[in-house]
Amino acid sequence: MYKKEIKVVDCTVRDGGLMNNWQFSDEFVRGVYEACAEAGIDYMEIGYKSSESAFSRDVVGPWKFCDEKDLRRIVGEGEPKVKLSAMADIGRIDLNDIPPKSESLITMIRVACYVHQMDKAIALAHHCMDKGYETTINLMAVSKVNEVELDEALSDVAKSRVPIFYLVDSFGSMHCESTEHLMKKYTEALPNKEIGIHAHNNMQLAMSNTITSIIHGATMLDATLLGMGRGAGNCPIEILIAFLKNPKYRLLPLLQAIQEQILPWQKKIDWGYHVPYLITGAMNEHPRSAMAWMDSERKNDFVAFMKSMHDYELLE
Amino acid sequence: MYKKEIKVVDCTVRDGGLMNNWQFSDEFVRGVYEACAEAGIDYMEIGYKSSESAFSRDVVGPWKFCDEKDLRRIVGEGEPKVKLSAMADIGRIDLNDIPPKSESLITMIRVACYVHQMDKAIALAHHCMDKGYETTINLMAVSKVNEVELDEALSDVAKSRVPIFYLVDSFGSMHCESTEHLMKKYTEALPNKEIGIHAHNNMQLAMSNTITSIIHGATMLDATLLGMGRGAGNCPIEILIAFLKNPKYRLLPLLQAIQEQILPWQKKIDWGYHVPYLITGAMNEHPRSAMAWMDSERKNDFVAFMKSMHDYELLE
Repeated sequence: MYKKEIKVVDCTVRDGGLMNNWQFSDEFVRGVYEACAEAGIDYMEIGYKSSESAFSRDVVGPWKFCDEKDLRRIVGEGEPKVKLSAMADIGRIDLNDIPPKSESLITMIRVACYVHQMDKAIALAHHCMDKGYETTINLMAVSKVNEVELDEALSDVAKSRVPIFYLVDSFGSMHCESTEHLMKKYTEALPNKEIGIHAHNNMQLAMSNTITSIIHGATMLDATLLGMGRGAGNCPIEILIAFLKNPKYRLLPLLQAIQEQILPWQKKIDWGYHVPYLITGAMNEHPRSAMAWMDSERKNDFVAFMKSMHDYELLE
Repeated sequence: MYKKEIKVVDCTVRDGGLMNNWQFSDEFVRGVYEACAEAGIDYMEIGYKSSESAFSRDVVGPWKFCDEKDLRRIVGEGEPKVKLSAMADIGRIDLNDIPPKSESLITMIRVACYVHQMDKAIALAHHCMDKGYETTINLMAVSKVNEVELDEALSDVAKSRVPIFYLVDSFGSMHCESTEHLMKKYTEALPNKEIGIHAHNNMQLAMSNTITSIIHGATMLDATLLGMGRGAGNCPIEILIAFLKNPKYRLLPLLQAIQEQILPWQKKIDWGYHVPYLITGAMNEHPRSAMAWMDSERKNDFVAFMKSMHDYELLE
């Protein structure tokens, strides 16, 4: 499935950090960074760009802010060996806290938003572009958005200068047919823009939905080492790279990072396919209730979790 | 994706037994049996039908043989509450060891074969049909079969009386496009037969390939509790049932069996997605080398495993 336009975005630190409040050691982040560089990964999303006023450093680690001094500790001297990306959430970043690109190690800022925030997202993305950054808009939870709202949002994006737009299956509830449907809608509404895919693995379909998206024109592919990410996690980057068989990528550096950096975290946090995440995904719900359940002593009582869900009879 | 013709075959004991030589307790097998019955699963494949001369009871548990007395301990009095299936491998079953259907608790015998064994498989399947059983032929490792051989095998099956033929991705190397290609080939070559799908999860595509097969006409769907099966395991039955949302199935009994019977086995055997299985799957190889690696002290040294593979540079 070779397409020279394909770019892979490693989101291990950014999405994985949703499971541990970005409390990664520098050694971990550097391990991921070196692996991405050696493997030829196109972008590494190293965290969120947030303002200090929005979160406390007592709670969240440095990758919630992506300060230049923290980035420099990872990159060392000179330019980054892999392009760095940071995600910005609407309302959690003061525009004054975004330096001009010339003063930053970050290349790309991706703006995450819900459908009702699209105007603000476009404004923030334009602001980042004017400061010199590559920019995307990532419309989250699209599986919950009705067709009229989505069409209006796409129409707004089409009129914007933002060059890349993401299909984001936040709840891991999509499969090949719904992915194909949205990819066709996105590519038709946005003929001059690149489309990206960010999948979650609640129904073990993250890799599959990424393939379906490639077939229907997606060129920016999000993935993480061993699928590390919120809840059921993301498309595993090692599967994606093994599948693509694209000569610009190498698999071995990713395997090394998995065995050295990621496996130890498997003993501490429960990302990946687990039955509570399946249940929220199959019900097209946010994984927060499943994440809370997985953090409780009853994590393996799947029957009780399902019965605790509102309207569980729909799935029973 | 409602289709009334769909039938689900639970293979937990049969395929899972490949990981522990079918050393399951009666309590385990009964737990799976009761769950399948309550969940409305159409068939439960409870093991292999093999001759005592082919395997030693010192090594393998009772579900390698599926003796009537063992089946009766699980079923109790009367007829089974869920149709029972057993798999037969060419050369490992003496025809005289297959009782007439009227003397057996088994409803269906599925004949597994490689492409060069197709004539023997058809003969064995006809023999089982003549004794009164429902029968399928499951052509294994089709991802390694060349087109000429496959077309000849399909032509032979088309001329046979065997009513059901299976697409089997033994190595977990297939994805949506290869699955679609084979499903179209199978349905065109066998217009009057049912097609089944048996997927493995090496690339986390077992569920996806099962969906693709349904879309292209498969009606017999193999799956196992929590994907328990050889190597990376199979399509997880709880995902399949949650996805199908077919009113004839119930999810809760399956979740109960997972938490009571399957989770304890996760501490003892390593089925499911692991990087060594990804590597054999991506290379379209039998998982045996990955299974041996997962049984060794170096199981988490993925780099060393990949380098141990012949021709690993193809994937590097």
